[in-house]
Amino acid sequence: MKPLVNRMDLLTGEVPSGATVVIRRASDMKGLYQNRVALEGLIKAKDPVVYQVYNVAVPERNGELQHCVSIIYPGKVGDEYFMTKGHFHARRDTAEVYLGLRGKGKLLLQTEKGEIEVLDMFPGSILYIPPYWGHRTVNVGDEPLIFFAIYPGDAGHDYQTIEAHGFRKVIVERDGKPVLVDNPNYRPST
Amino acid sequence: MKPLVNRMDLLTGEVPSGATVVIRRASDMKGLYQNRVALEGLIKAKDPVVYQVYNVAVPERNGELQHCVSIIYPGKVGDEYFMTKGHFHARRDTAEVYLGLRGKGKLLLQTEKGEIEVLDMFPGSILYIPPYWGHRTVNVGDEPLIFFAIYPGDAGHDYQTIEAHGFRKVIVERDGKPVLVDNPNYRPST
Repeated sequence: MKPLVNRMDLLTGEVPSGATVVIRRASDMKGLYQNRVALEGLIKAKDPVVYQVYNVAVPERNGELQHCVSIIYPGKVGDEYFMTKGHFHARRDTAEVYLGLRGKGKLLLQTEKGEIEVLDMFPGSILYIPPYWGHRTVNVGDEPLIFFAIYPGDAGHDYQTIEAHGFRKVIVERDGKPVLVDNPNYRPST
Repeated sequence: MKPLVNRMDLLTGEVPSGATVVIRRASDMKGLYQNRVALEGLIKAKDPVVYQVYNVAVPERNGELQHCVSIIYPGKVGDEYFMTKGHFHARRDTAEVYLGLRGKGKLLLQTEKGEIEVLDMFPGSILYIPPYWGHRTVNVGDEPLIFFAIYPGDAGHDYQTIEAHGFRKVIVERDGKPVLVDNPNYRPST
C-alpha cells in the first residue's frame, strides 16, 4: 500500500473523496431509544440523518489503523439526544482514540461487567478508550459533533452485545441540560 | 486502565496536563542538516526549539494506541526547513495516522529499499503512513505546523536507521518555495 492523503473539511466534517460514508437515519436506530413513539414520529416526518461516518479503507490487519470522521447531528428523540449505536470491538483487547474537533458531546463507556464512565467531548478533547470498554457518542449541543477516530486494523465491531443488553445509563435533556439517568431497559449480562 | 480525556489547545498545539513533552532543539539535530555551519550558528545564537511532541502515556502493548500532538516551529537551517528527526517503527509492519490541524507541511516517506513519497500536510489533511514506510515531517510554512498522530501501542521507534542512512531527498527553499532535491549525504543500504 502506498502512503495517502485525504482532505476533511474541519467545519462540516465531510471527506469529499477517498472515503466511504455510512449514514444512519432515525429508521436505523430502532430499539435504541426509550421513546418509541417519538422515534416513529421522527421517521414518518422526515427520517433525519442522526449521524454519518467517513471511513478511509485500509486492510483489516494487525499493525494497520482504521480511521474515520464521525458527524453526529444535533437533535433528540423524545428527551434523548442523537447518538451513535454504540459497540464493543470484536477483538476486545483493542483501544480507540478520539480527537474532538467541533461541538459538545458526551462519550458513554461501559465494560461487559457493567462499569460506566462518561467523558466530555469538545474541540481539542483527546479521548482514550482503553481495551474492553464499549462506547457510544452523544451530541448534547446544538451544532454538529465532529470527531476523528482511530482504532487497530484488526479490532472489528460487535454491535450485538449493545443491542442485546443496552447501556446501563442514558443521557437525556432535563431543564435544557444533559443528565445521566438509569436506563430502565438495561438487561445485564447474567 | 480507565478511559481518559485530555485537552489540547487547537491553536498552539499545547497539551497543558496529562501528557509528557519531548523538546528537540537545534542542538538535538546535529548530523541531520546539510549545512553544519548554519546549524552551529543557530545553536550558538539561541538554540531554538525546532519541534516538540506531547505524548499521552499508554501501555506499549499490542491493541493499545500511542497518540501525540506534534508542533514543528517555522524556521530554517541554511535553506533546509525545520523538520523532525524522522524514524521507522521498530516493529516494521505497523502504520501511523496523522491529522493535520494547523500550518503547511510536507510528509517525507521512504522505504528501506529507498522508495520515496512526499505528501502535503494542511489543516484537515488525513495522512496514512502504511507499514514499512519511514517518515519525517517538514514545516514549509511560516506558522507552527501542528498535527495529531496515532500509532500502534507496540510499534516502537527506530531512529538509528535514518541516522545511519539519511533520507534520499531533502526539502529546501528555492525562490521562496519548497523544493525536493537529492540529498548528497544519502548512504543507501547495501
